[in-house]
Amino acid sequence: MIHQSAWLGKNVLIGENTVIEQEVIIGDNTTIGSNVIIHKGTIIGSNVIIDDLTCLGKYPMANKKMARKPDTGLAPLLIGDHVTIGANCVIYRGSIIHDGVLVGDLASIRENTEIEDESIIGRNATIENNTRIGSRVTVQSNAYLTADMIIEDDVFVGPCCSSSNDKYMGMGNYPYQGPILKKGAKIGNNATLLPGIIVEENATVGAGAVVTSNVPQGKTVVGNPARQLG
Amino acid sequence: MIHQSAWLGKNVLIGENTVIEQEVIIGDNTTIGSNVIIHKGTIIGSNVIIDDLTCLGKYPMANKKMARKPDTGLAPLLIGDHVTIGANCVIYRGSIIHDGVLVGDLASIRENTEIEDESIIGRNATIENNTRIGSRVTVQSNAYLTADMIIEDDVFVGPCCSSSNDKYMGMGNYPYQGPILKKGAKIGNNATLLPGIIVEENATVGAGAVVTSNVPQGKTVVGNPARQLG
Amino acid sequence: MIHQSAWLGKNVLIGENTVIEQEVIIGDNTTIGSNVIIHKGTIIGSNVIIDDLTCLGKYPMANKKMARKPDTGLAPLLIGDHVTIGANCVIYRGSIIHDGVLVGDLASIRENTEIEDESIIGRNATIENNTRIGSRVTVQSNAYLTADMIIEDDVFVGPCCSSSNDKYMGMGNYPYQGPILKKGAKIGNNATLLPGIIVEENATVGAGAVVTSNVPQGKTVVGNPARQLG
Repeated sequence: MIHQSAWLGKNVLIGENTVIEQEVIIGDNTTIGSNVIIHKGTIIGSNVIIDDLTCLGKYPMANKKMARKPDTGLAPLLIGDHVTIGANCVIYRGSIIHDGVLVGDLASIRENTEIEDESIIGRNATIENNTRIGSRVTVQSNAYLTADMIIEDDVFVGPCCSSSNDKYMGMGNYPYQGPILKKGAKIGNNATLLPGIIVEENATVGAGAVVTSNVPQGKTVVGNPARQLG
Repeated sequence: MIHQSAWLGKNVLIGENTVIEQEVIIGDNTTIGSNVIIHKGTIIGSNVIIDDLTCLGKYPMANKKMARKPDTGLAPLLIGDHVTIGANCVIYRGSIIHDGVLVGDLASIRENTEIEDESIIGRNATIENNTRIGSRVTVQSNAYLTADMIIEDDVFVGPCCSSSNDKYMGMGNYPYQGPILKKGAKIGNNATLLPGIIVEENATVGAGAVVTSNVPQGKTVVGNPARQLG
Repeated sequence: MIHQSAWLGKNVLIGENTVIEQEVIIGDNTTIGSNVIIHKGTIIGSNVIIDDLTCLGKYPMANKKMARKPDTGLAPLLIGDHVTIGANCVIYRGSIIHDGVLVGDLASIRENTEIEDESIIGRNATIENNTRIGSRVTVQSNAYLTADMIIEDDVFVGPCCSSSNDKYMGMGNYPYQGPILKKGAKIGNNATLLPGIIVEENATVGAGAVVTSNVPQGKTVVGNPARQLG
């Protein structure tokens, strides 16, 4: 079902059972798979690939227990040119995915997130709300990026990396702050990053490390708790 | 496709390409997205939201190698009032999800699970069979709750937390027992919980800790293996 | 939509809104759910179950930043007899899934992967490209198996286990090598395996261990970094 108010460019290919809601805009030469849902107002560039069974532009959800209520004034989801999005993904309204980004299958990206040019979001990765991801960043498969993170250009986040933004574990009434990963930082697989820690430029976190304090520029930490090598 | 034996309340909204099988019951003011599958007999309350591409009420699966064969006499899936379920979720027959629960996108919940009022199951979280989750529990994104766990009220399970119920790793012929998390316990992100360990009331497990023995009431453990602080 | 060039055996059941593309072959007594996509050329055996919202036979994706470009000459996806595949799964072209394998919901399996008879791939597990998995292997829920792994028969991989194949974290120009798990090896939940490490026959890796060097035959390692017990 393509709503009559949607606008499609030239050579747009759309699979079977795909739903394109009101006022969606899709650029030239974009290919959309089958059983995809594109919600109201989503704007998609040219030469984009959206794979099967993906949901784009959904609104955030909430229940009574949630400390932070979702933003209801979100802008439409914006997807740049030459972006590729896998199958069974979920991407929210209020985010911007810039040119050339690749999003793996089964990944989810929440609202108010921005992902700069040429970055990779791995399969089954989760990106929470209000997180900024620079250019040429690699977020490997199954990585978990909490809300309120800042990830600068050329960072590498290994598979299954975990992060947190809530020092008091659900007690509420405290400011949330996700980790900050500076330009060129590298995080090994299954590392654990605590709320608000800073991994400075070109620093390295070893696989499985539990990072409880800041990592200085160019240094490497390993272990639980993580300690500087050498 | 809505089967003629399904019963829908007032003001039920249903998206495109959604399949509602025999004898499904849906309460008033419930909204169901597009490309959703609701299997035979599922009972859904009022003021519920079910997002796109979600599968509700499926039967368990098995192959020859599986130690524990699935229960074939499962009751229908029951979903209470004011429940919100995200996109691309999978929830099995034989479970009960009580009023006001929120289930994030890409989460899965197996059979014979019960989740009490106002709890949150995070995005991409996995809840295995026979697990009990109390009221106002937060299970953060990407957390893995094994089968046969008991989680009391007001527990916080951080993102990417991992648990196991099988001390002998697939050797079979041993009783399975998941961890037990008592009222108000808090588990940090990417912590590892071994089979059968008990985290007592208001105890805290640090991020990245590997918990190999019980954690006393109100105490905090960190490290690998986890040791008591102070 | 079933393409006219697809070939279906006897007693094949197909749900609603399912797309079966050109030249797909499906054996006798196979059951396929609703809102499933089966891409061009996929070959499926007899007595197979494919659950709702699953995508089979898709091509790999790439962007400019990816070090390794996908293989464009992939053979069709082959699925043997008595295979069961869950809901919301994604399985690529160029892989072979042998008889009796079970794949849990929300799992993904990339190209050039082979999984031998009777193995189990858990729910929400991720199997990257070029990985070989033997017979009667259990890969538990949420486990992450990187590319270029070799997993021999009767291995047990616990839930949330993480692995890596890239010693230099995205710097490129180095050979990739995933871990090698020999016959009967057992890996505990949330363990971290570094690139190229070998876990020898019947060796055991404890829950939460960070394995930075080879594990000798029949021995057990625990901790961060993992050290031999006893």
